[in-house]
Amino acid sequence: MNKTDKKPTWKQRIHEIIYEADTKEGKLFDVILLIAIIASIVLVMLESIESFDKEYHNFLNISEWVITILFSIEYILRVVSIKKPFKYIFSFYGIIDFLSTIPKYLSFIIIGSHHFVALRALRLLRVFRILKLARYIGASNNLKIALKASRAKIAVFIFFIVIICIILGTIMYMIEGAENGFTSIPRSVYWAIVTLTTVGFGDIAPQTPLGQLIASVIMILGYGIIAIPTGIVSSEMARTNNTLDTNTQACPNCLKDKHKDKATFCYNCGSILNP
Amino acid sequence: MNKTDKKPTWKQRIHEIIYEADTKEGKLFDVILLIAIIASIVLVMLESIESFDKEYHNFLNISEWVITILFSIEYILRVVSIKKPFKYIFSFYGIIDFLSTIPKYLSFIIIGSHHFVALRALRLLRVFRILKLARYIGASNNLKIALKASRAKIAVFIFFIVIICIILGTIMYMIEGAENGFTSIPRSVYWAIVTLTTVGFGDIAPQTPLGQLIASVIMILGYGIIAIPTGIVSSEMARTNNTLDTNTQACPNCLKDKHKDKATFCYNCGSILNP
Amino acid sequence: MNKTDKKPTWKQRIHEIIYEADTKEGKLFDVILLIAIIASIVLVMLESIESFDKEYHNFLNISEWVITILFSIEYILRVVSIKKPFKYIFSFYGIIDFLSTIPKYLSFIIIGSHHFVALRALRLLRVFRILKLARYIGASNNLKIALKASRAKIAVFIFFIVIICIILGTIMYMIEGAENGFTSIPRSVYWAIVTLTTVGFGDIAPQTPLGQLIASVIMILGYGIIAIPTGIVSSEMARTNNTLDTNTQACPNCLKDKHKDKATFCYNCGSILNP
Amino acid sequence: MNKTDKKPTWKQRIHEIIYEADTKEGKLFDVILLIAIIASIVLVMLESIESFDKEYHNFLNISEWVITILFSIEYILRVVSIKKPFKYIFSFYGIIDFLSTIPKYLSFIIIGSHHFVALRALRLLRVFRILKLARYIGASNNLKIALKASRAKIAVFIFFIVIICIILGTIMYMIEGAENGFTSIPRSVYWAIVTLTTVGFGDIAPQTPLGQLIASVIMILGYGIIAIPTGIVSSEMARTNNTLDTNTQACPNCLKDKHKDKATFCYNCGSILNP
Repeated sequence: MNKTDKKPTWKQRIHEIIYEADTKEGKLFDVILLIAIIASIVLVMLESIESFDKEYHNFLNISEWVITILFSIEYILRVVSIKKPFKYIFSFYGIIDFLSTIPKYLSFIIIGSHHFVALRALRLLRVFRILKLARYIGASNNLKIALKASRAKIAVFIFFIVIICIILGTIMYMIEGAENGFTSIPRSVYWAIVTLTTVGFGDIAPQTPLGQLIASVIMILGYGIIAIPTGIVSSEMARTNNTLDTNTQACPNCLKDKHKDKATFCYNCGSILNP
Repeated sequence: MNKTDKKPTWKQRIHEIIYEADTKEGKLFDVILLIAIIASIVLVMLESIESFDKEYHNFLNISEWVITILFSIEYILRVVSIKKPFKYIFSFYGIIDFLSTIPKYLSFIIIGSHHFVALRALRLLRVFRILKLARYIGASNNLKIALKASRAKIAVFIFFIVIICIILGTIMYMIEGAENGFTSIPRSVYWAIVTLTTVGFGDIAPQTPLGQLIASVIMILGYGIIAIPTGIVSSEMARTNNTLDTNTQACPNCLKDKHKDKATFCYNCGSILNP
Repeated sequence: MNKTDKKPTWKQRIHEIIYEADTKEGKLFDVILLIAIIASIVLVMLESIESFDKEYHNFLNISEWVITILFSIEYILRVVSIKKPFKYIFSFYGIIDFLSTIPKYLSFIIIGSHHFVALRALRLLRVFRILKLARYIGASNNLKIALKASRAKIAVFIFFIVIICIILGTIMYMIEGAENGFTSIPRSVYWAIVTLTTVGFGDIAPQTPLGQLIASVIMILGYGIIAIPTGIVSSEMARTNNTLDTNTQACPNCLKDKHKDKATFCYNCGSILNP
Repeated sequence: MNKTDKKPTWKQRIHEIIYEADTKEGKLFDVILLIAIIASIVLVMLESIESFDKEYHNFLNISEWVITILFSIEYILRVVSIKKPFKYIFSFYGIIDFLSTIPKYLSFIIIGSHHFVALRALRLLRVFRILKLARYIGASNNLKIALKASRAKIAVFIFFIVIICIILGTIMYMIEGAENGFTSIPRSVYWAIVTLTTVGFGDIAPQTPLGQLIASVIMILGYGIIAIPTGIVSSEMARTNNTLDTNTQACPNCLKDKHKDKATFCYNCGSILNP
């Protein structure tokens, strides 16, 4: 951003408000945007409830138009105020912004299209814009580091879960068979996942004694191995936490390390620590 | 409380018994109060079972009157024995005490009002009074510190859960549609929450193969990310425990505390710590 | 046990075999006992399956007699071989042994009593005898220490869970009402427990939008606070583990502590550690 | 493998490609094998869906033949290229390879045998071959160590879970009885496992107030003790992570390893460690 003594142009001012959150206006804009996004999501949801849509159709329609026009103005301002508009337009969030604004206009061109479920869902893409705003949340940093560090382990874990579910699902398919709801191997694998993850819908349930025995084994297995992802993340987070509190500086006199971050004297020999 | 050699007035004595738990009478009062509250909660619950209410209506009615009169006496004594009665009356627990005592009297004024569900629920507010007594439990302190420290992270976590459920719920709404029970987006989001949290009621369940595939992904996701809140609280509790390795000794020179247990010099100013 | 050169009497020999597990015969006895107990439990279970009982009634009856006679002999030997028989007879395991042996004999005295469910259950008390054998498992010690240390915290946690479920159950009772399955407050509290603990039977499920919204809150709450008992036990176990590896011995030269258990020289200054 | 200047024979070359993953061709072979296995699993699954099998029977049949022939060639090459063929043939993976390839050929000999569910399941044994490829995944090592270390504790835990479920299941069988779905003790124990592990199918659910009370206790119990396996694995993983703080340097004097990272003297013999 231009911080010289020259007065910023209106484009620069708008850029400052829309793309940055340092100034008071920028923060205000982010808050208004957040409210508009949430209002828009609630609208789309309410619209999908048939009985609600029938009764308050006009209200929903007008509100949707107001929000669509607001987002349209924001989209145009974003394109206009940036130096390289195409970089924004073809960025992930640029495409999201465009796709979530267009459906209401399309409902004019294609008559009856406002019934289309797909168009409704497009508008819900605005949810992703909340994630963009989420970068301001500091508390998620520590979490992100721990998750990134344990990503590979969790992938391996999920991989084994899927293989176990394929094996167990096939066994259940052979034992229970189509007459008890296990009509195909994929459906049995689906049931194994439902059971192992302790979700337990109950739409399919084993009926034979042997099937119930194996189901019991799957459930106890699932109850036990839930400990694994938890253990992975827990130990990774404990590690991240530990390294955040102490530094790696060694005392110049007694060579002890792991001093507290704010320490200026060695806790062991009392020498002054190098800053 | 007045601890001089002057004999305490009866107001002071009652204040001592009701508001404090240092004396033998104070502790006895707390125990009786706890039993009365639990008895009262059980009564309200039993009353709500229609068949039980029909058979034992008189017993329930009389018991409720006994308890109501006891709580009324307690309420009056609380108001009378305190120096600033209005401070108590308009405090959180003062209002709770009043609201949970009044319903039985209202059943005289408004004929038939003892049927009202709302009045019944008001009496259940006494549950909160148990929480007031809970302050005596020392074991919850460590827990409270850990929870307070991880509050922000858990909020961020719940926020992401809700967003994920909105996205997944919408996808399921488009795939399964109204004919399979996913009649609206909010209902689909509700289903996504039921599935992701591994509750799995089974009142709504995916019927199409693609829906079951995505449901499997949601379930494995939910099974995996349950590790995150657990990881947060675990590492935070481990940290709280670790600070038990630091002592509460203050440096005689700079008054800094939280020294390591084995430290002999202050980490801040280098003075020798008293052993 | 008598370890003098005098030859042990047959009572001493039997005592050695039954009550101790040091000798080869003692261990063999424990293994045979374990097999007999498991066989007995399986028998009682199979007997309770009506269709199985009809077909194999004779086999089950004879097997049960064989096992009952075996346990009777064991019971008599236990009483005879011990010095203070009444101490055994009125001990917890003595009563269990008696109660689990008697039902089959009672079926003679009381005609038709072998149908009684209660007598069948009495025989299942033998399960507790497995727990007696479990004292040999060393792996459970560390676990037991951690559980004992976190007992108070877990009790507080369960207490809060119950209170939260009473409050949430009452709210759901008022919102959903009897027409949606929430017929009474205890039933609603039961549903709240089913939901919060992520069990989710689905026999009762909210039907109104507001009820589903609150159910969503309960589910996310339950999904989040499952972290608390886990955090408690994890941090407690980590603590137990840590203190098992290092000792509290301090180096006589540099005063550093937390040496490895098997260390004979200080890892910091190289001085010999006192044994 | 022969690394002399003599040119390797074609047998050695094939051995290198099939059994090893060091060369470019070896890695390529593993990737193709993985794709073929996954394709094969998907085929078997799709075949089990009746409606899908009817429509695309020819496509599935031909694809299965192509894959079977590919695996046959691979099997022959494996036997031919190894020095001791019988060691491979009677190894675990050798038998798996054979059993998963044979079913398609058997469908010629035994007419109509391609309907047999068992033959279909045999082909799914190829899933185990993925596990063979999994040895390349480094991320699972740390996990494996932690799991191996906590194996005994988890076994004890599962053992107690099963005993608790037998006791609770019997109690529920006595309370609810056959008229509420608890038709036999094994079925009640199955229900107790479903409930304790928080799966909650809902195919069997308590109907009496007392049954619901005990169910509530089971659920809270299950919700609480899920913390135990988690605590075991978490603390074990933290421990494994901690040993990463020790280095692999061996003492030049006594050859002991696992010194602390900051150690300058051997904890065993007091010699100076090489930096």
